[in-house]
Amino acid sequence: MKIQLASSYGFCFGVKRAIKIAEEHQGSKTYGPLIHNKDEINRLKEGFNIGLAEKLEDVDRRDAVVIRTHGIPKDELAQLKAQENEIIDATCPYVTTPQNIVAQMSEKGYSIVIFGDKNHPEIKGVVSYAKDQQNAFIVADVKELDGLPILSKVAVVAQTTRKPEDFLKVVNALIPHHKEVRVFNTICNATFENQDAAAELAKDADVMIVIGGKHSSNTKQLHSICKSYCSDSYLIENETELNTSWFKGKRLCGISAGASTPDWIVQNVIDTIQSMVRVEEVGKSE
Amino acid sequence: MKIQLASSYGFCFGVKRAIKIAEEHQGSKTYGPLIHNKDEINRLKEGFNIGLAEKLEDVDRRDAVVIRTHGIPKDELAQLKAQENEIIDATCPYVTTPQNIVAQMSEKGYSIVIFGDKNHPEIKGVVSYAKDQQNAFIVADVKELDGLPILSKVAVVAQTTRKPEDFLKVVNALIPHHKEVRVFNTICNATFENQDAAAELAKDADVMIVIGGKHSSNTKQLHSICKSYCSDSYLIENETELNTSWFKGKRLCGISAGASTPDWIVQNVIDTIQSMVRVEEVGKSE
Repeated sequence: MKIQLASSYGFCFGVKRAIKIAEEHQGSKTYGPLIHNKDEINRLKEGFNIGLAEKLEDVDRRDAVVIRTHGIPKDELAQLKAQENEIIDATCPYVTTPQNIVAQMSEKGYSIVIFGDKNHPEIKGVVSYAKDQQNAFIVADVKELDGLPILSKVAVVAQTTRKPEDFLKVVNALIPHHKEVRVFNTICNATFENQDAAAELAKDADVMIVIGGKHSSNTKQLHSICKSYCSDSYLIENETELNTSWFKGKRLCGISAGASTPDWIVQNVIDTIQSMVRVEEVGKSE
Repeated sequence: MKIQLASSYGFCFGVKRAIKIAEEHQGSKTYGPLIHNKDEINRLKEGFNIGLAEKLEDVDRRDAVVIRTHGIPKDELAQLKAQENEIIDATCPYVTTPQNIVAQMSEKGYSIVIFGDKNHPEIKGVVSYAKDQQNAFIVADVKELDGLPILSKVAVVAQTTRKPEDFLKVVNALIPHHKEVRVFNTICNATFENQDAAAELAKDADVMIVIGGKHSSNTKQLHSICKSYCSDSYLIENETELNTSWFKGKRLCGISAGASTPDWIVQNVIDTIQSMVRVEEVGKSE
C-alpha cells in the first residue's frame, strides 16, 4: 500500500507561523489559547514553557506576550504596551490586512462594513481599528444591513473564514445604494484549500483517513467531502483509533487533517499505519 | 376626464440641462446630434440657430462647440481646445463622474474595468480618461472578463444606462480574484424612474398615452409596462395619431413619454386631447 498526504491539510499558514513564533519565545505567555487543541498547547507548555493568559489581568507587568493569530483589539494592545509587556505579534498577516484597511479607510472618511461575527476575537480586533466606531458596522448576514446609517462611500471587509458567496450578498446589497463601495476581499481560502485537496486525493484513494476533533465542524466537513468520493473514509482523533482491517487489500491510503490538527499527530498516524501494514511509499500530493 | 402626467417622464435631467445650455448659446454648433429627435434638433436650429457638426472636421476654427451629454474622448477635447474653439460643456454630470473616476483611479495605479458598450460615445469618452490604456478594459458582459490581465487592485464603473443587476454580475466575478475591487455605481436611474412612474400611474389610469418613437427601445419598454397594468395603453409619436374614441367614458388618462420626447410634443398631445374631450383637470403625479 502507498500512503499519500493531501497537498494541503491541517494547520493553515497563520497557525503554523504562530506556533513557530511561540517556540522561538520560550517562557512567554500566549494571550488566549494559541489553537483549539489541548495536546498542542500541552506540547508548547512542556517543551517550550509557553504559558497561557486567559484574560488581560493574567498578564503580569513586563511579561513577554504572544498575540495569537486572531489579533486583539487596539486598546488591549495599547494596555499591554503601557504596562511594558514585550509584544510578540503572531497575528496572522491575513488578519493584519483587514485591521490596516479598516484603520486607513476609516481615516479617509469611509463607512466601514465588516462581514463577520461580532463575538469572534478576530472581528473584535478588526473593528477596534475604526477611527469612528459610530461609523463601523459588523453584519453577520445581508439582512443586518437594513436601516444602518451607512455613508455614500463605504469600505467592506470580511472575516477571514467566511464563505465568498455570502460576502458577495452583502456587497451586492450595498452597491445599488452607495456611490462607492470599496470591496476588500479579505477571505482566506485555507479552509477551502484543505477541502479541495482532500477531494482530489479521495478520488484516487481506496481508503481515506481524516484526522481531527470529532466535534470540529471543519474536520467533519472534510470527512463528509472525502466520503462522497471514497466510501472507506474514516474520521479519527489520533492513532489509537486506527484499525488494521481498514487497510486490508488497499492500494492507496489518503490522509487529510482538520485545521487544528498538529503535524506530529499526523506523523503518529502515519507511523502507526506503517506498523500495521506493509507501506511501500509515503508521499504528498502535488 | 382627468389627465395626469407621470411623476417622471421624457427627457432625463442631463438632456434637459444640455438643451437649456444650447439655447443659451445661440449660433453655436453641437458636436454630434444633441438628442435622437429630429423635431427637437429642427426647433433648436430654427429658434436658436444651433448648428450640427457630425464630425471633428465639420468644426471650424474658433466655432463655439456644444459637447453633448455623452461627453467626448479626451484627445478630441484637446484638439478642439488647440484650434481655439469655445467649449460649451453640456456633458451630463452623471457622465463626467465616471470620466473623473477613471482618470483618478488610473493615476493611482488601479486597473480600470468599464461595464458598457465600447462603441457607445459615452464609453469612448470615459475610457479615454484612463492614463494607461493598456490597463483599461471595456466589457459588454461578465464573460468578457475571462483572461483579461486585470491587476489585483481594480476600479469598476458602468455605463450610465446599464442595468444594475448586470453590473453586479461583473463585480461579483471580479471580487473573488482581486484583492481590492473599488466599485463606483455610476448607473443613472433616470430610465428606471420613468418606468416606475409610468407603472404607478398605469395602475390608476383607465387609458394611458405613451409618447415617443415607435422604434425607440425605451419608449416601447414604457408602453409594454403600461399595457401590463392598463390594457388601453397607446403608443403615439405625436398628437396627430390621437383618436377620440380612446377617451370615451374614461375617468383618468395617464401620460408618459420616452427619453427622447421633448416637453412641447407632450404639451401638444395634452392640448389635442383637451380639444377632443371635456377635461376637468390636468395634473402631475407626486
